[in-house]
Amino acid sequence: MTNIIYKNKLIKIEIENSEIPWLKIFSQELYKEFSDAPKEVREEIFRLLEIIEKEMIAFFSPTKINIASFGNYVPHLHWHIMARFENDSYFPEPMWGTKQREGSYELRDFDRFIEILVSKIK
Amino acid sequence: MTNIIYKNKLIKIEIENSEIPWLKIFSQELYKEFSDAPKEVREEIFRLLEIIEKEMIAFFSPTKINIASFGNYVPHLHWHIMARFENDSYFPEPMWGTKQREGSYELRDFDRFIEILVSKIK
Repeated sequence: MTNIIYKNKLIKIEIENSEIPWLKIFSQELYKEFSDAPKEVREEIFRLLEIIEKEMIAFFSPTKINIASFGNYVPHLHWHIMARFENDSYFPEPMWGTKQREGSYELRDFDRFIEILVSKIK
Repeated sequence: MTNIIYKNKLIKIEIENSEIPWLKIFSQELYKEFSDAPKEVREEIFRLLEIIEKEMIAFFSPTKINIASFGNYVPHLHWHIMARFENDSYFPEPMWGTKQREGSYELRDFDRFIEILVSKIK
């Protein structure tokens, strides 16, 4: 089973299995750093980050959106975008930080969100 | 003493005091989310992220560049950009993750790097 919800010739979008709404955008070609990718790939990633952020805000009303690109384990250019909530397990720490509590955020209607998101991207 | 190394009408760039090369780009106006900022601010941030990334790679030859925008503590739009090294205290974890070791990376010539960077930005 794949977690890919959308792809085109430049990028693919995958779901990260998590307690929160969390998507990852990978470049189709292998690049280590963001500045290694051609302009059209960088612009496509920014276009999608903006659409995903807006749709996450509209659908989930999160406390904050978090965005990150690390790639220290997997040197294949990818960006994380996450909707964060005061009652998730790590807030206000990043999802890579120290766990703050047993989170009580309940992720609902994620499939419906993905449907709406994909319709906005296309 | 300020840590601001560059500013214009849209953004300012600050040094994060750290064992690694780490800069932060803040919007001048207060915005909570990236998509709240006008297009010219978003484009200026991306332009600067790209310049900073390239200059960090050229000057420090890092293992990886890390980029992040959280704002869970301070809901004022800002982006982090960090040069990471295998022997820094957290690699391969993000700088917000679990400390892996007593880091042995030695940050050298940071002032010189800032001089070069600012000359490229202007």
